[in-house]
Amino acid sequence: MLEKIAVPLAGGYAYDIWAGDTASLREKLAPVLENRRVMTVADSNTVCYAPAMGLEDPVVIPAGERSKTFTSAAMLCGEAARRGLDRQSVIVALGGGVVGDLAGFAAAIYMRGIRVVQIPTSLLAMVDSSVGGKTAVDIPEGKNLAGAFHQPQTVLISPEFLQGLPVRERLGALAEVVKYGAALDRDFFDFLEENAENLIKPEVDEALYLQIICRSCSIKAKIVTEDEKESGVRKYLNYGHTYGHAVELLSDFRLSHGESVAIGMAAAARMACLQGMWSKAEEDRQNALLRKLGLPVTIPQEMSAEKIVEVMMHDKKNSAGSITLVLPVKMGEVTCRKFTDTDQVRQVAEELR
Amino acid sequence: MLEKIAVPLAGGYAYDIWAGDTASLREKLAPVLENRRVMTVADSNTVCYAPAMGLEDPVVIPAGERSKTFTSAAMLCGEAARRGLDRQSVIVALGGGVVGDLAGFAAAIYMRGIRVVQIPTSLLAMVDSSVGGKTAVDIPEGKNLAGAFHQPQTVLISPEFLQGLPVRERLGALAEVVKYGAALDRDFFDFLEENAENLIKPEVDEALYLQIICRSCSIKAKIVTEDEKESGVRKYLNYGHTYGHAVELLSDFRLSHGESVAIGMAAAARMACLQGMWSKAEEDRQNALLRKLGLPVTIPQEMSAEKIVEVMMHDKKNSAGSITLVLPVKMGEVTCRKFTDTDQVRQVAEELR
Repeated sequence: MLEKIAVPLAGGYAYDIWAGDTASLREKLAPVLENRRVMTVADSNTVCYAPAMGLEDPVVIPAGERSKTFTSAAMLCGEAARRGLDRQSVIVALGGGVVGDLAGFAAAIYMRGIRVVQIPTSLLAMVDSSVGGKTAVDIPEGKNLAGAFHQPQTVLISPEFLQGLPVRERLGALAEVVKYGAALDRDFFDFLEENAENLIKPEVDEALYLQIICRSCSIKAKIVTEDEKESGVRKYLNYGHTYGHAVELLSDFRLSHGESVAIGMAAAARMACLQGMWSKAEEDRQNALLRKLGLPVTIPQEMSAEKIVEVMMHDKKNSAGSITLVLPVKMGEVTCRKFTDTDQVRQVAEELR
Repeated sequence: MLEKIAVPLAGGYAYDIWAGDTASLREKLAPVLENRRVMTVADSNTVCYAPAMGLEDPVVIPAGERSKTFTSAAMLCGEAARRGLDRQSVIVALGGGVVGDLAGFAAAIYMRGIRVVQIPTSLLAMVDSSVGGKTAVDIPEGKNLAGAFHQPQTVLISPEFLQGLPVRERLGALAEVVKYGAALDRDFFDFLEENAENLIKPEVDEALYLQIICRSCSIKAKIVTEDEKESGVRKYLNYGHTYGHAVELLSDFRLSHGESVAIGMAAAARMACLQGMWSKAEEDRQNALLRKLGLPVTIPQEMSAEKIVEVMMHDKKNSAGSITLVLPVKMGEVTCRKFTDTDQVRQVAEELR
């Protein structure tokens, strides 16, 4: 039995996300690949899932962010050509965010765009990066600075793959899940509160994770459908990401993306309180859930507030000279606010240290 | 006074092509760049046109196809980041097809797509590659194998720049111009016949060239608007390109693209006659114009027909196991025909040697 989440994008880009057991997903995959050349891309950690999905002869990249380069994308295009992939062919991305972003980018540009199927194996990729069509590589000047919007043919999600994931990585990804609740869906936030104990257990409760994955994908799918190119409501998905990106970068990636987003949400909550938009009670409630999930809600002592503001000013999502923050107005609802005076932005960072 | 050709693409991608004198074009350009960071890309031959267009501090790449690589695209993205380009910024491509394809590709992927203005300086780029939104780089496995569809903000065309172009290069590009007439617009073919003498003069008749550029762009714009992603009528623009690509490749690029397309049109015309679709008189008429423009209509002796067929089978536009040719049915009208039996395809190549 599979759950289906429709992503009804306009212009022929609509697709479905399927989530459930690996065997059923494999049956869904077969007709998508039938009579087409297929190139599977996996990394050294995820190549083990290829047989379960019936995928043969994968191209294996080294695991980790360092593989997300132009050089790797060029290598994948070259390999695609040597394997005879044509415009009707399919690239299957089997892995976490790095594989999804990189293989997705290769599919976006090979012959100016061929089909891609995303099979995310990390919780972060399942609830976030496999939905929305963003693909990218890093360049020395910054993360994700080169990329493309390229919608997948379908996304297949098996919570079974989560059993192999390090616990810290899984919990980190829950920050993005909490984000969907706190920013966009109050009921979902309630649900996460009620199930926090089960979410943090070392052994993955697959049925529960299936539920939160589907809900997260539904929320993201709805937003992405409304705003494919990130000019309007899609900005709300950046809740927690402005301060988050800054601390992630300044920690030199010792803080994971999820942990950084948790800190970012705490910072946004603080700012919302300062602005009189949110109550202390709501801030506490959000932070209590994050803490319960083992996520940090304070900024490491060694990071200076000045540095954080400086990095935020250089965020590619900000226009020159100002910082835009996504701030909560009530649980499950956010809005955007632009700060040209950075004093308050710095003050919040100071208070959270 | 400028001529305007509208390219009314759907989904917010509509733009205008402006053609005329450099001073007027410069006035058109100013508001497009106003209050935005701008990075101009030129090559060592075209950087001299930057001052006339009011463009400062261009990034200069070495002239020639060898610059059209992933490495160059990564370099341009890095340079864009170092110059502080954000999502509101503009890349200006000032040059021939290589600069247009490469800078266009960089614009397509930098921050997942920023604005690009195309200022083609070669006749080929003016009548062909600057219209349609195709961008690409080469990989060792093949030309244009990685790229993106990315529509420009505007295209600015000054026939003045043609004065600096080598005559052979200009005449080569006329093959694409004849293609528009022979494949899609009988009146235009007549016009070209009437003006052939003036077209081949060493000094460029700018008013005449302005006319043929505008007509060519109009024809291409119409086709591209009908079929942005190359699934239908856009294939007709490949008239002459299937045999053409093969001889271009086998000549090791001693034949220019335009010369190869001229040979390709002669081959397609031959095939159309063999199929009873076109008359000998029409074939002769087409080839006479091509010859008058200094273009070849026969295949070099040293190329074997077998080799040509083999290369055609590997063309990325062909699905495995067959060759699709665009064939004329009358002057100014073409259709697609698929050949699974390659005997006739080889025979035509044989006859043209």
